[in-house]
Amino acid sequence: MSKSRLNHLINLLRDSELNALAVNPGPTLAYLTGLHFHLSERPVVFLISPTIKPTLVLPELEVGKIKTAAISIEGFTYGDNPATWQDAFARACRSVNLAGQTIGIEPEHFRYLELKYLENSLPNARFVPAGSVLVNLRVQKEPEEIEAMRKAVVIAQEALKATLPQIHIGMTEREIAAILSIEILKAGSDPEFPFSPIVASGPNSANPHAIPTDRHLQEGDMLVVDWGASYLGYCSDLTRTFAIGEVSEDFKQIAVIVEQANAAGKAEAGPEIMAGQVDTAVRKVIEQGGYGPYFIHRTGHGLGMEVHEPPYIFTENNSPLLPGMTFTVEPGIYLPDRGGVRIEDNVVITPNGCECLSDLPRGLIQIC
Amino acid sequence: MSKSRLNHLINLLRDSELNALAVNPGPTLAYLTGLHFHLSERPVVFLISPTIKPTLVLPELEVGKIKTAAISIEGFTYGDNPATWQDAFARACRSVNLAGQTIGIEPEHFRYLELKYLENSLPNARFVPAGSVLVNLRVQKEPEEIEAMRKAVVIAQEALKATLPQIHIGMTEREIAAILSIEILKAGSDPEFPFSPIVASGPNSANPHAIPTDRHLQEGDMLVVDWGASYLGYCSDLTRTFAIGEVSEDFKQIAVIVEQANAAGKAEAGPEIMAGQVDTAVRKVIEQGGYGPYFIHRTGHGLGMEVHEPPYIFTENNSPLLPGMTFTVEPGIYLPDRGGVRIEDNVVITPNGCECLSDLPRGLIQIC
Repeated sequence: MSKSRLNHLINLLRDSELNALAVNPGPTLAYLTGLHFHLSERPVVFLISPTIKPTLVLPELEVGKIKTAAISIEGFTYGDNPATWQDAFARACRSVNLAGQTIGIEPEHFRYLELKYLENSLPNARFVPAGSVLVNLRVQKEPEEIEAMRKAVVIAQEALKATLPQIHIGMTEREIAAILSIEILKAGSDPEFPFSPIVASGPNSANPHAIPTDRHLQEGDMLVVDWGASYLGYCSDLTRTFAIGEVSEDFKQIAVIVEQANAAGKAEAGPEIMAGQVDTAVRKVIEQGGYGPYFIHRTGHGLGMEVHEPPYIFTENNSPLLPGMTFTVEPGIYLPDRGGVRIEDNVVITPNGCECLSDLPRGLIQIC
Repeated sequence: MSKSRLNHLINLLRDSELNALAVNPGPTLAYLTGLHFHLSERPVVFLISPTIKPTLVLPELEVGKIKTAAISIEGFTYGDNPATWQDAFARACRSVNLAGQTIGIEPEHFRYLELKYLENSLPNARFVPAGSVLVNLRVQKEPEEIEAMRKAVVIAQEALKATLPQIHIGMTEREIAAILSIEILKAGSDPEFPFSPIVASGPNSANPHAIPTDRHLQEGDMLVVDWGASYLGYCSDLTRTFAIGEVSEDFKQIAVIVEQANAAGKAEAGPEIMAGQVDTAVRKVIEQGGYGPYFIHRTGHGLGMEVHEPPYIFTENNSPLLPGMTFTVEPGIYLPDRGGVRIEDNVVITPNGCECLSDLPRGLIQIC
């Protein structure tokens, strides 16, 4: 599996202006090698190019992992004294002979730490964003990746179903988030969640990136729950909105509009459709409903080994959607200081259209 | 609280070669402002210097957080189209007037992403590791920080106590890790664990950084459990080792040696003692026991808002320990392909010595 992924990457490199790629711990390293390293104060860098054996600089402590990798790797190790770390990079860089080359990195992952160790050992190399090489490597998911995401969605949905009956007026957002987190694990999630659940009630639900607080649920609240699970390293990321007791008419109205917008986005999505067209289809429903200025974020983001990855679903994105791409469709309407609604599904582009992986009811349900 | 932290930082900057500091999402940003941002594809940078109002570049979507910050902040925002992000950095950098200045960053956190946005807008600035300025900012914990860590230790210990009776021969490491994760949440941990629990049995326990597998517990196994909890953003990180059924004599022997080494490290630690002396005291016990080559890592690492942070407890570290410093003492002996023992406590340096925050029994207990 990972051998063919490595070959795919080598071919992408050959077609690019890059001579090599340098990757630090994160999803791309796991995708290519099957190896998991934590991002820590100990630098770990994986070097790949068409002309070298894949090379890894890593702590001596972790050297046993190389044997378990899906591909053959040359390792260069260092001990616990940071004064010796540069030497491991120097030895690795002498071996790979990348002096003067253009080396792609992942801007969202690569740190100053790794960059400086490499720059010191490869003073004439140029480090540039890997851009489309890495997007093209991982953006179209293989069937086994989609199956893992499907399972991550099922786990998340089961967890919410188990949580809803435990919610009652007077509970705090933080208490609900704790129960939901436990249910996510019980339902079979990996212990590392894609993100901590968002549980936002009343006025807090008008903040798309709210963090659970000690606010108590009250009659008339909107309750936004944005949560996900992880399965074999693949993420789900869902949102549903609930009514606590009887809510005002305009809340009921925006819930209907957001549900329609969510449906319009999924209906628009398909192969060769531009990502921006999905955003536009969603935005149009909300604008026609009269709430355009209250939809304050993009329609969605790619989802896979990372909870945010390409393709990003924003108006100006002219890149075509392609089979195997997986992303969120998550319109929202947020009435400042009062409350909001967001409905988020996870979809995969198929040869003929778009399949929605999530199927929990989307209409506004009164749960207390 | 955070106002005094900011003043502390300003004083540290004045005493350094740095003109300013640039911080991205992570513990230092939370420490100074009380604000939590996730590390994502959207760049967030906080700029601090003695001559400017604290300045934050952030997504428009998150602008509401500024009002909730512990200090007064000038915000510069951008929308969902990445083509517009550089402009927000340009506006912020024009406002702070840091052209040509030396700006400190955190090498372990700052990414190529943030670095390039800043470099593009401050072409003559120099970006260098903040080094001792940031170490000195956070390394000596305030009483309220130590209280949060004490609580994170209590939560972790309660979780293990609740897990042990559920362990039996035939279970997999992964199953035990799942149960422990649930118990950590039930005991009151924040949903974001400091790290996923390590549950390593039999030969896997000889790998200090093992990841839970589908291996089944067997009679005669050593079982290493390395786990932690998070409370108000502060971490605990403990390890205990158990015997599954009757284990061989040399396993019992190394368990005694590691317990003695752990005790020796804690006895050595105190104010003005060099970090390396703690490592040396631990190593001496293991060497005298005849297992020197099988203790293959440093004695410990600092612990606080991060699960690995200064002070690092390795032989060559000549920095003095100071009151309020918090770190792990975690000697281990690993017999390759057979099994290992590690015993990890969390300690705080006091004016007169060293207090251990964890008190679970350390001797080898047979649990099945």
